Amino acid sequence: MNRRKFIQSTTLAAAAAGTSRLWAQAAGSGDRERQDIYRHVDSHQDDHLSKLRQYLRQPSISSTGEGITECADMVRRFMVDLKFTEVELVQTPGHPVVWGHYDAGARKTLVVYGMYDVVPIFRPELWEVPPFEARIVDKPGLGKALVARGTGNTKVPFRALLNAMESILSVRGELPINVMCVVEGEEELASRNIGVAVEKHRDKLKTGDACLDPKYLQNEQGLIELTLGAKGNTYLHLECSNERRGIGPSGGSSSRFSALFGNPAWRLVEALSTMVDNDGLNIKIEGYMDMHRLLPEDLELIDAMLERYDPSVLLSDAKASNFLPGLSKRDILIRYMLTPSFNISGIRGGFVDEDGRATRLPGKAFVKIDCRTVPELDHRQIVPLVRAHLDKHGFQDIGIRVFGSYPYFKTSYRNPQVQTLIQTYRNYGHEPLLFPLRASSGPYGYHFTDPPLSLPFLYGGLGHAGHFHAPNEYVIIEGEGNLASLPEVEKFYVDLIYDFAAGPERPGKS
Amino acid sequence: MNRRKFIQSTTLAAAAAGTSRLWAQAAGSGDRERQDIYRHVDSHQDDHLSKLRQYLRQPSISSTGEGITECADMVRRFMVDLKFTEVELVQTPGHPVVWGHYDAGARKTLVVYGMYDVVPIFRPELWEVPPFEARIVDKPGLGKALVARGTGNTKVPFRALLNAMESILSVRGELPINVMCVVEGEEELASRNIGVAVEKHRDKLKTGDACLDPKYLQNEQGLIELTLGAKGNTYLHLECSNERRGIGPSGGSSSRFSALFGNPAWRLVEALSTMVDNDGLNIKIEGYMDMHRLLPEDLELIDAMLERYDPSVLLSDAKASNFLPGLSKRDILIRYMLTPSFNISGIRGGFVDEDGRATRLPGKAFVKIDCRTVPELDHRQIVPLVRAHLDKHGFQDIGIRVFGSYPYFKTSYRNPQVQTLIQTYRNYGHEPLLFPLRASSGPYGYHFTDPPLSLPFLYGGLGHAGHFHAPNEYVIIEGEGNLASLPEVEKFYVDLIYDFAAGPERPGKS
Repeated sequence: MNRRKFIQSTTLAAAAAGTSRLWAQAAGSGDRERQDIYRHVDSHQDDHLSKLRQYLRQPSISSTGEGITECADMVRRFMVDLKFTEVELVQTPGHPVVWGHYDAGARKTLVVYGMYDVVPIFRPELWEVPPFEARIVDKPGLGKALVARGTGNTKVPFRALLNAMESILSVRGELPINVMCVVEGEEELASRNIGVAVEKHRDKLKTGDACLDPKYLQNEQGLIELTLGAKGNTYLHLECSNERRGIGPSGGSSSRFSALFGNPAWRLVEALSTMVDNDGLNIKIEGYMDMHRLLPEDLELIDAMLERYDPSVLLSDAKASNFLPGLSKRDILIRYMLTPSFNISGIRGGFVDEDGRATRLPGKAFVKIDCRTVPELDHRQIVPLVRAHLDKHGFQDIGIRVFGSYPYFKTSYRNPQVQTLIQTYRNYGHEPLLFPLRASSGPYGYHFTDPPLSLPFLYGGLGHAGHFHAPNEYVIIEGEGNLASLPEVEKFYVDLIYDFAAGPERPGKS
Repeated sequence: MNRRKFIQSTTLAAAAAGTSRLWAQAAGSGDRERQDIYRHVDSHQDDHLSKLRQYLRQPSISSTGEGITECADMVRRFMVDLKFTEVELVQTPGHPVVWGHYDAGARKTLVVYGMYDVVPIFRPELWEVPPFEARIVDKPGLGKALVARGTGNTKVPFRALLNAMESILSVRGELPINVMCVVEGEEELASRNIGVAVEKHRDKLKTGDACLDPKYLQNEQGLIELTLGAKGNTYLHLECSNERRGIGPSGGSSSRFSALFGNPAWRLVEALSTMVDNDGLNIKIEGYMDMHRLLPEDLELIDAMLERYDPSVLLSDAKASNFLPGLSKRDILIRYMLTPSFNISGIRGGFVDEDGRATRLPGKAFVKIDCRTVPELDHRQIVPLVRAHLDKHGFQDIGIRVFGSYPYFKTSYRNPQVQTLIQTYRNYGHEPLLFPLRASSGPYGYHFTDPPLSLPFLYGGLGHAGHFHAPNEYVIIEGEGNLASLPEVEKFYVDLIYDFAAGPERPGKS
């Protein structure tokens, strides 16, 4: 397809899919400036799409380092081009964080969280297009999609927000708000060094009113799934080894010796069985569940969700046959979002060839446990509680390694900045589904929501994206039905910026 | 070294190491025939060694099939050359079994068990010589060694027995006993098809007086470690899978779904914890330990062993630091040889990269259990007991696969055929250590010891061998101290044949 024709068709599609209402509203309010910005967005789709593709075509795989330096520099130039007053590559022990400050001298300040890294191409043979070419592919029932690694997660929403800023700047000369960008290159490595940049610019960040994480939030049905936080995660490695026990062969041996030494795999099984029962659902570690609270506000949101949301979609998300028997829809949502876990991600010891046969006494066995934390589990208590539990039950020799630990974070839907965001959605005809917490964990949010910054955290954006971390990751750029097309996605960000500018300041900001 | 010089030197070394006593005895008894045979053995060492090497240079790896056909044919030709009256390759669903019958019309019949297969070369880089060249290497403190895969396990002792027969035949014209050879090519695959040949020749085998398994039985100190049987083994694979449960993602998923489905790895851990405790040493499966008996005769042998055998050598065998605390030497031997096990050979589920971090809900988890059986555990009861235990504890969904199951076997040291063997050892100045049972399992013995054959089973041979299944597998062919050299090994077999011929018949043989 010829590019100009494409832009025309997306503009038309967007108009057909709800933008008309917005145009009417903006026109009705006499807001000529906003109309000029919308027109700029529409007339610059060619350039905006080109900028998305430039960003997508730059690999930036944090786990291998491929393209990281170049991509960080590209993000830096994005900000320079937008006349940010301060742009810096903050060096860390890992990949750099791009810091950008646009100081308009405005009353309100939006902190934008971003990530420029992506996960690797795990199974290249399953991609229908090359993962770093950013081709456009038809997705019947959804629309036209841009397919590339990093599209939805999260290069397109981030660049779409910058495109919106660019249109505002082109028409208006400056943004109506101050902006601070913190764009990390290690989100896929559990955001292990973002704290360096947050700490470095703490005093400025404290002046923010909210933190925005640009995301495509429409599900396949077009509903906005707006989450208000994310679970924490503490990742443990528990190991029982003959070396640590001081008994038996540290490298393993023939199993004929097992009765002389005991078996570290059995010992680990026994220790684990004291910690959890009921298929892993009942956590028996002393003190662990005592921290758990089902907050009335969260339950209120779940009850509200149930009117419009059928949790049975989670079965297809997980590619699962059935839930545990006897769960009500409400139970399912509570378990999905608000229930602590102490999950075996993996367990291994000895000879593990599935179809093989070898008689071994393992030298050690280990288990990898992920603890997803929800209100009001204090992630810093997990290791001490597990240690005390193991010691109390006689397993002093079982070692604990911590591979990472960060807290859950959440913002109340009553927060005025969240209400502003919800209102912007309503202006686009969307009543968001409010999820109290993402079921998956978020390793960076707490840097912004916890003291000293204490910012409300907003995921935000129109549009539909899918296949994160999987082959053929995509965003829809020309949506069918009520799925937003790229121009509408950008206009939404324009409006969010204006609505945010007009909304209340954060109390207590310094 | 020039070959002739080598033979001379081995003959001298053998004479120095104890053969002189034997010569004196044979000469003293006026047994000129035996002296002629010894001389034949000595004067044909060049040829005998060449035959060992021919056999060792023929690879015969049962797990891959490499060289199996050629090696089976070589063993067949060995028997043809020895004028066996009946030689046959018994075809099985796997590798053929070589059957040979030498019918001397004698009063006594010796069944010889053999195996012509070997395990693969797992780590070729650790071999100091090519594993199928059969080179001679100095082993300080032990002597000169023939190093090759399959030396000790078991090509050299088998061929040395045939060499002994050849010398008897050359001097005497015929053997003083009847011989039936059953030489399988799948011992390293748990002897899965030897039963085909045993069944085919059952009526002849029932006329046997004993079954001999030629082995190099001297340990590094020169002591004869004569075991009177071997443990059985039942190898189980227990699996808990979402597919079988009908709940959750059969292929696994992100762990954010864990509370909706439960976790098959946790479920497996919980099931296992009901079966065993105390580091795997206390088996709680209902009915399992009720079958166990410590037989007075076995305890008698252990008490006798303790006068001459320090079980702390097992620490170095296992490359282990310490035994479980508080075990007496007697406890150690009882646990090593006479205690049932229900051992985790391996356990695996989910994400098992030791140093990695991934949050997964496993789709399944499995454990591989080896049950070493001792008197009087009936291996056929194990699966029904485990199934009943799992069902009783609510784990009907945990599946059991049986990868193999065979019983223990043993012969009383009071058996007259065993006493004949012991006397032959005494004639060579050795008082064997009698182990009631090999700690490792033996997958073929029961075919001979159980009805309908009911043969006494004799491991037998002089000489020292080591590194079975490991790099640089060897036998000593020119021993230092009291380690037998090849001529003495062969003469021992000559004497064993004569002593067996002169000994009592098996009562009840048909």
